Amino acid sequence: MNVILDCDPGHDDAIAIILAASKISPLHIEAITTVAGNVGVEKNTLNTLKICDIVGLKEVPVAQGSTRPMVKESEIAEEIHGESGLDGPNLPAVPQKEKIDQHAVDLIIEKLIGAKEPITLVPTGPLTNIAMALVKEPNIKANIQEIVLMGGGTFGNWTPAAEFNIYVDAEAAKVVFESGVPIRMFGLDITHQVLATNETITDLQQIKNPVAEFVAELLEFFIQAYKDHFDFDGGPIHDACTVAHLMDPSIFTFEHVHVDIETKGEFTYGMTSVDLGGVTGKAPNVYVATDLNQDKFWSLFKEAISAY
Amino acid sequence: MNVILDCDPGHDDAIAIILAASKISPLHIEAITTVAGNVGVEKNTLNTLKICDIVGLKEVPVAQGSTRPMVKESEIAEEIHGESGLDGPNLPAVPQKEKIDQHAVDLIIEKLIGAKEPITLVPTGPLTNIAMALVKEPNIKANIQEIVLMGGGTFGNWTPAAEFNIYVDAEAAKVVFESGVPIRMFGLDITHQVLATNETITDLQQIKNPVAEFVAELLEFFIQAYKDHFDFDGGPIHDACTVAHLMDPSIFTFEHVHVDIETKGEFTYGMTSVDLGGVTGKAPNVYVATDLNQDKFWSLFKEAISAY
Amino acid sequence: MNVILDCDPGHDDAIAIILAASKISPLHIEAITTVAGNVGVEKNTLNTLKICDIVGLKEVPVAQGSTRPMVKESEIAEEIHGESGLDGPNLPAVPQKEKIDQHAVDLIIEKLIGAKEPITLVPTGPLTNIAMALVKEPNIKANIQEIVLMGGGTFGNWTPAAEFNIYVDAEAAKVVFESGVPIRMFGLDITHQVLATNETITDLQQIKNPVAEFVAELLEFFIQAYKDHFDFDGGPIHDACTVAHLMDPSIFTFEHVHVDIETKGEFTYGMTSVDLGGVTGKAPNVYVATDLNQDKFWSLFKEAISAY
Amino acid sequence: MNVILDCDPGHDDAIAIILAASKISPLHIEAITTVAGNVGVEKNTLNTLKICDIVGLKEVPVAQGSTRPMVKESEIAEEIHGESGLDGPNLPAVPQKEKIDQHAVDLIIEKLIGAKEPITLVPTGPLTNIAMALVKEPNIKANIQEIVLMGGGTFGNWTPAAEFNIYVDAEAAKVVFESGVPIRMFGLDITHQVLATNETITDLQQIKNPVAEFVAELLEFFIQAYKDHFDFDGGPIHDACTVAHLMDPSIFTFEHVHVDIETKGEFTYGMTSVDLGGVTGKAPNVYVATDLNQDKFWSLFKEAISAY
Repeated sequence: MNVILDCDPGHDDAIAIILAASKISPLHIEAITTVAGNVGVEKNTLNTLKICDIVGLKEVPVAQGSTRPMVKESEIAEEIHGESGLDGPNLPAVPQKEKIDQHAVDLIIEKLIGAKEPITLVPTGPLTNIAMALVKEPNIKANIQEIVLMGGGTFGNWTPAAEFNIYVDAEAAKVVFESGVPIRMFGLDITHQVLATNETITDLQQIKNPVAEFVAELLEFFIQAYKDHFDFDGGPIHDACTVAHLMDPSIFTFEHVHVDIETKGEFTYGMTSVDLGGVTGKAPNVYVATDLNQDKFWSLFKEAISAY
Repeated sequence: MNVILDCDPGHDDAIAIILAASKISPLHIEAITTVAGNVGVEKNTLNTLKICDIVGLKEVPVAQGSTRPMVKESEIAEEIHGESGLDGPNLPAVPQKEKIDQHAVDLIIEKLIGAKEPITLVPTGPLTNIAMALVKEPNIKANIQEIVLMGGGTFGNWTPAAEFNIYVDAEAAKVVFESGVPIRMFGLDITHQVLATNETITDLQQIKNPVAEFVAELLEFFIQAYKDHFDFDGGPIHDACTVAHLMDPSIFTFEHVHVDIETKGEFTYGMTSVDLGGVTGKAPNVYVATDLNQDKFWSLFKEAISAY
Repeated sequence: MNVILDCDPGHDDAIAIILAASKISPLHIEAITTVAGNVGVEKNTLNTLKICDIVGLKEVPVAQGSTRPMVKESEIAEEIHGESGLDGPNLPAVPQKEKIDQHAVDLIIEKLIGAKEPITLVPTGPLTNIAMALVKEPNIKANIQEIVLMGGGTFGNWTPAAEFNIYVDAEAAKVVFESGVPIRMFGLDITHQVLATNETITDLQQIKNPVAEFVAELLEFFIQAYKDHFDFDGGPIHDACTVAHLMDPSIFTFEHVHVDIETKGEFTYGMTSVDLGGVTGKAPNVYVATDLNQDKFWSLFKEAISAY
Repeated sequence: MNVILDCDPGHDDAIAIILAASKISPLHIEAITTVAGNVGVEKNTLNTLKICDIVGLKEVPVAQGSTRPMVKESEIAEEIHGESGLDGPNLPAVPQKEKIDQHAVDLIIEKLIGAKEPITLVPTGPLTNIAMALVKEPNIKANIQEIVLMGGGTFGNWTPAAEFNIYVDAEAAKVVFESGVPIRMFGLDITHQVLATNETITDLQQIKNPVAEFVAELLEFFIQAYKDHFDFDGGPIHDACTVAHLMDPSIFTFEHVHVDIETKGEFTYGMTSVDLGGVTGKAPNVYVATDLNQDKFWSLFKEAISAY
C-alpha cells in the first residue's frame, strides 16, 4: 500500500513515521510532507529529516509545505511538544538528510497525478497541504485511495469543542471533509484511549535498539507534558493510530457517519460535528474510529519497533 | 425550599412535577409555569393542569408562558412525546384545575420580586420564560437562589451538537448562562444515565396507587418512543434529575466549569460548550452534573411515588 | 390615527415627540414608552417626562421599558447625546409628570389588545420593547396598523455596516422584521438628508415660543455633536422623519423591498441588508424611505412648532 | 510598470486587457492568469487566449488557474456574460495562442520571486489565485508593488451586501485584504459610474480598427445584459477601471480606509465592510476609489483603442 505521510512532528507524528518505516510495515512511503502545526513548518521539516536519519529513510522524498493556515492566522502548540517541536531526545542540530526543493502541495499533486495505483494520504497535522492540493488540482481525487487522518472528535482539546489539528485550519478541514474522498478519522475519542505510560517506556528500554531508545526518550517528554498540561495519566500517541490501522486493519472499529466542520461558530470554530446518532439524515462521509483492541495495538507497536 | 417549576410536559417533566409534589418532598412549589417546547404551549399547559389534578396540586398557581422562542422560529418534538405531548395514559380531555390569568413571565417576576427568601428556578423546557423574565426585570436576579435546569450536554440529541431544550431557544439560553445567576445543569451526559426500563414499570405497578399507575403508563409510551426514535434501551427521564437533586443533594456529583452557548454556528447552533478540561481559562459559571448514585436516585424515585 | 411612540430621547426623539404633540398633528398619542438606547432607560424616561412637561402632554401615559437588549450586552451613545441623553437645554432635574407603574412591554400589549382600531407603532430607539411584546403576546400583531421606525440603512454609523438602533439590539430587530407586520423604515440613507443647520436654529428663534426655544437649544448641542463626532455639516434629526411621514404622507417616497437583519456576522452584526436591487428574489417586507421633499419637510417642521 | 493581470474574461476583463496591451500603455504585462469566476476557468482561459490573438499579445504567457474557490462551492455568472463568458463577438472556436503548462498560482509565485523590481498584481476576478499564492509562498509579498483589484463596494450586486468577485471567494478576499500588501480597490461605488452606452459604441465604430470593432461588439452584448438583468442604462466596465488607473493615476481619487471581509454572516457573506466614516478606529489597509474624472477616463479609453 502506497502512502504519503503529511505531518508536523511532533512526538506522536514521529512515532507514526517510525511505525510506517518499520521492516514489518506493509506500507510503501511515497513521500513525507510537512505542514505548520505543532510548531512552525521549518522546525517540523527539520524534525522530519532527523527522524528519517534515525530510521534510515534515505530514499523517501521529504518536502516542506504550508507555513500558515489557508484563511485564519497561525496557532502553535509549543506547550505540548517543546520549543523544537520534538523536545526530549538529544538530536543533532542539523540532519544529514535534506528536504527536496519542491513545495509539499506540488509533491502531493505530482505523486497523485502520476500514480499507477491509488495512494492513501495520512495527514497527522492540520489539513492545509491536503486542502491546498485539492483546491489547486481537483483531479487528484481520482487517485486518492483514502484520507486516513488524525483530528477532531466529539470533544476538543484546544477549545472545549475543537481538537488542535482541525482548529488550526478549519477551512482546510472543511475542504477535505466535503471533498467526496473517502475519509477515515482518528479523533480524540479514540486517541485518548491510546496512552503511552511509564510501562511503555520500560518495554521500549528492553528492546535495546536505537529506535526504541529514541521512542522511549520521546515518550518521557511527552508523557510529562500531558501530565503537566492536561493532567493525563499517559501520553496519547494520537498520530500513531492512523499508521497502526493501515498496518493492521483489525485493530480499530469504525462507524460510518456524517461529519461537518464548523467554521462560523463563536465558541465552536474547528469542531467536527460527528453525527453518531444519525440525527441529521445526511449521508455518511467519514469512517470514525470508535473502539480499539488495546492488546493488538501495543503488540504491533512493540513488534514494529523491535524490528529495527 | 421554594421552587418555581418551568416546564413543557412532556413525560419526563411530568415525573419531575410528581416527585416535587410528593409528600416526602421538601420542596414548596410556588408556581408552575409553562413554555413552548416539546409541543405547543397550550398543550403543555393542559398537560400541566391534568398532572396537577392527578397529584392533587390544587393551590399552586399554573401560568401559561411563551408560545415561541425569543428570536428564532419554533421547533417541536412530537416524535418523542406524541401528539398531545403526554401520550400514553388515558387522560380526560379537559382538566379540572384552571390556569391563572397571568403570563408566566409576569408570575415568575412577581413571585421573585415579592419573595421573602430566594426561590430556586427549575426550568425543564426551553429557557424562554426565564430569559424573558431576566430581560424584562433584571432585578429578579437578587432573589433567585439558583437555576437548576435540564438542558445541554457535551453532545446533542436534536443535532449532533445540540440538545433539544437549548436548541429550541439558544438565545434564551445565552441570556440565562451569561446572567451571573448560579446555574446547575443536568445535561444529556447525566440524564442518559437515568434510564427508566421495563423493570421500572414493574416496580411502579407493585406500588398500587393512581400516581404510580399514571407514571407507569407514561413510561410505557416513553420507553417505546426512545426505542423507536433513538434505539435506546430505556427512557431517560431527563427532567426528573433536577427535582431529584433538590430533594436529595447527595445523589449527583458536579463539576464547576465554564459553559458558553453557541448561537452563531452553522452546524452547532444551541450547543453548550462545556469546558470540562479548563482550557478556556474562563471563570466557572455552571455546576455541571457529571455522575450519580443510581441506587439513591431510584430509591428516591420509588419512595416519592409510593408516598402518594 | 392612533400611535404609540417608543423612544430613547435623545435629541431627535424629542423632536419626534414635539411634532407628534403639535396642535396641527393628526396623531393621537396613545402612549409613550421608553427603551435603553442612546443612554440608559431611566435617563430616557426622565427625558421623556420633561419633554411631556414642555409640550403639555399631561394625559398620555409614559411607561418605562427594557433596560437592556434581548440577547447581547448593552451599548450606549453618550458621545452624541451627552451625559443626560438630552444635553443642551437647561432642564429641571425632576420632571412634574410621572411615569406610570407598568412596564412598557405590558402597556404596549394592553393598548394593542384593547384597541378598537389598529395602532401604529413608532419606535425611534432600539427595537427591544416591540420585539419583547411580539414574543410575549404574538396576538398583538392583528391590531398593529404598521411599525414606522427609525433604524438601519444601506450603510452604518456605529460600525461601517450597522446603524446604532439596530446594532444595539439586532436580535430584537430580527424579530420585528420577520414578524409579518407591515414595516416602514427610515434608515440613514434618508435621515442623513434631513439636516438641521444653524439656519434651522435661526428659523426657530424667530418663532418665539418656549417649544421653539427648546428645540433650538437641542439643535445647538446636536449639530455640534455631529460636527465633532462625524464631521457633519448639520444634525440629522433621524427620528423626526417617522412622525413627519405620519403627519404628511406626501413628504417621503418609498421602495417596497426585502430587508434581512444580520445577527451572525463578524463585522456586520446589526446590518439591515436592504435588497434595493431585488437580487434575493424574496418577497418585500419593508417600505424603505428613499427620497424626500425637503421643502415639505421643513415647512411641516416649522408649522408644527409654530403651532405651540 | 510591470503587471500581472489575473482575470476571468468576461467582457469588462477583456477591455482591461485591451487597455493594458495598447500601444499607449506604459504597462509591461508579465503574465496573464485566469481564475474561475464569471464562467468556469477553462472558458475564461480560452477567452483570454482569443483576446491575446486579437490584440497581438504573442509573447505574454497565459496560465490557467484555480477551478474553484478556496473553501466554498463554485458560483458562476452566465446571466451577465453569456454561455461562453464572452458572448457577443463572433470568435473562432479555437484560439491560435496556447496557454503555458503551468498553474497560474505557480506562475504568479515564480514571476514575483524572480522579479528584479516589484510587480503590480491586477486581479479582476475572484481572488482565489492571489490568495493561494500568498498562502503557498508568503515571501512573494516583498515583491508585490500593490494589488489593484476590482471587487467589493459599500453595496452588492450578487446579494444586497456582496459584489460578485468577493462573494465567489470571500475567504480568498480575506487572505488578500489581511495580507499587509498595499491594496487599491475599485468597487461597485466607482465602477457603476463607468457606464458604456450606445454613444460609446458609436464612438468605437468611428475608430475603425479591428480591436475597436471587437470592443463595440462586446459592449453591445454587455449593455443589453445589464439592461435585462439589472435595468441599468449602460454597461459598467468594472474591470477596466483598474488598468485605466495604472495608465493614468490622475483619473480616480481614493480614500485610504480600513476594509474587512465578512465570511461569517448569514446574509452578508462576501461583503467588504468599508469604513469610510472611520468609526472602527482600525488602521487603513485599502485605497478605495471614490470618484473619477469621466472625461479623462473616456479619453484614455478611446485613445488606447485608437492606438491599435
